[in-house]
Amino acid sequence: MKKLVIIGVGLIGSSLALGLKTRKSAYEVIGVFRSKSNANLALEMGVVDRCVSDLGEVAAELGGGDIVMMTVPTLSIEAVLHQCRSLLSPSVTITDGASVKGSVREAALAVYGCIPSQLVLGHPIAGSEKSGVSAANPNLYVNHRVILTPMPETDHAHVDDVAKMWREVGAEILLMDVDLHDEILGATSHLPHVIAYSLVDTLASDAHNEDIFRYAAGGFRDFTRIASSDPDMWHDIMLANKKSVLHSIDLFTANLERLRAAIESNDGDAIKGVFTRAKTARDHFTQRLKQQEK
Amino acid sequence: MKKLVIIGVGLIGSSLALGLKTRKSAYEVIGVFRSKSNANLALEMGVVDRCVSDLGEVAAELGGGDIVMMTVPTLSIEAVLHQCRSLLSPSVTITDGASVKGSVREAALAVYGCIPSQLVLGHPIAGSEKSGVSAANPNLYVNHRVILTPMPETDHAHVDDVAKMWREVGAEILLMDVDLHDEILGATSHLPHVIAYSLVDTLASDAHNEDIFRYAAGGFRDFTRIASSDPDMWHDIMLANKKSVLHSIDLFTANLERLRAAIESNDGDAIKGVFTRAKTARDHFTQRLKQQEK
Repeated sequence: MKKLVIIGVGLIGSSLALGLKTRKSAYEVIGVFRSKSNANLALEMGVVDRCVSDLGEVAAELGGGDIVMMTVPTLSIEAVLHQCRSLLSPSVTITDGASVKGSVREAALAVYGCIPSQLVLGHPIAGSEKSGVSAANPNLYVNHRVILTPMPETDHAHVDDVAKMWREVGAEILLMDVDLHDEILGATSHLPHVIAYSLVDTLASDAHNEDIFRYAAGGFRDFTRIASSDPDMWHDIMLANKKSVLHSIDLFTANLERLRAAIESNDGDAIKGVFTRAKTARDHFTQRLKQQEK
Repeated sequence: MKKLVIIGVGLIGSSLALGLKTRKSAYEVIGVFRSKSNANLALEMGVVDRCVSDLGEVAAELGGGDIVMMTVPTLSIEAVLHQCRSLLSPSVTITDGASVKGSVREAALAVYGCIPSQLVLGHPIAGSEKSGVSAANPNLYVNHRVILTPMPETDHAHVDDVAKMWREVGAEILLMDVDLHDEILGATSHLPHVIAYSLVDTLASDAHNEDIFRYAAGGFRDFTRIASSDPDMWHDIMLANKKSVLHSIDLFTANLERLRAAIESNDGDAIKGVFTRAKTARDHFTQRLKQQEK
């Protein structure tokens, strides 16, 4: 039986584990927990088969075909890679679920001095504003994409093993370049989070904030859903993908400034231009997404 | 049988009409249509009982207890009020569904030279990114709020008639001051639309826009849903509520600039401060909304 070791069992790791268990996959799932209560919860929920408190307790059992999955916060990856380097044989597949891939590549270079062929960087494009083991969802990845960003140094056999594992829980695999991944996710995920957090913080700081939130309706709830995401996790993502995030913020701010000027000067053509281009692009995008989901 | 005349039968007006018909309400619903094909569609769908092409065709039939509902685009209200002034007796209730109330007050002052006691300004807080008669939904207003903003000049009997009509389709009535309404909606609805339109337009203008939209996922679709709203309608709203919209944009931009600076300078405390305040405020807001919806 192959082994899957999950370091940092939160929503992402526990949903993967529960998805594999639910589908009677051929993995023994071992969780590395710092918190005893989380470990007990994961055992009770059937998320993991076994719990350990440190990778060292299980490293000697691992070999070819086994996978170590790092689902710790993005900026903690480097510390985990130090452990991997000292404890794991080169035959063990190492992968991750971090939302930024360039920072993991840098961490690997800092720790190993090279990109180890056993390291497969990955990013499941699924999530929730909920977090933790208690939110584990065995179908979180069904019809969702997992982006893998193999590098020239990466061994194809390790990529195949990671891809196979994700497909078992219903995910579709996409291969992408590390830098393109970070640029695209900076634009479509990290920037929206920056905006949603900033918008809600703006309104919460307003003198009328009690009235504002009292009379806000369902549309506002949907628009700001991602502002309920885990602050610590998103702090890490913003800093790990700083270059792309700042670039995206600047493009957005420039566009917003032009739109503001158009509203101030009653420039109806410019206002309708922005609104119409946006509607056309989004309608086109959602149609394609609908076709993919069929 | 009382008469409800709807001028400008789009999503808002047709959903009200269909909601009343579905509940066998005691209104004869008469639609004023410029487009023959829309009129036929509304008749076929059972949205209206009768169609006319001008308010003048039906004005002489109207008296106390009858309601004229203006659901035309916000900036077209003034032209409709000119018709109302020349055609309707002071016993007929006049109301509207525009998203901005200050601009309707100004239009009334410009047309009548005063606030006529028969005029009840209203705003149903419900909608969809869909539009038009074909999107009519008889349950659009169930458990949604309709804000009425009566002024000192407004006759209570007219307010009661309008409130009663909205309650028949499941809405909850809130009374509010005109200026507070525009400030709150500017913050919770108009600003989010500005942001969503601007964000999607920013990404559509990016050199990588094909990849960006190809790899964007469901979270992006939800966040940008309101960018698929009707550009003409939202053009009017932005200009009608210009003062509040510009003020809201400025507060948001200042907050976003501070957050950008915190990311650039690795100021983790400031980043987590924004994210945590936002999450707390939103979680608090959604809990209250959930209790209201029970």
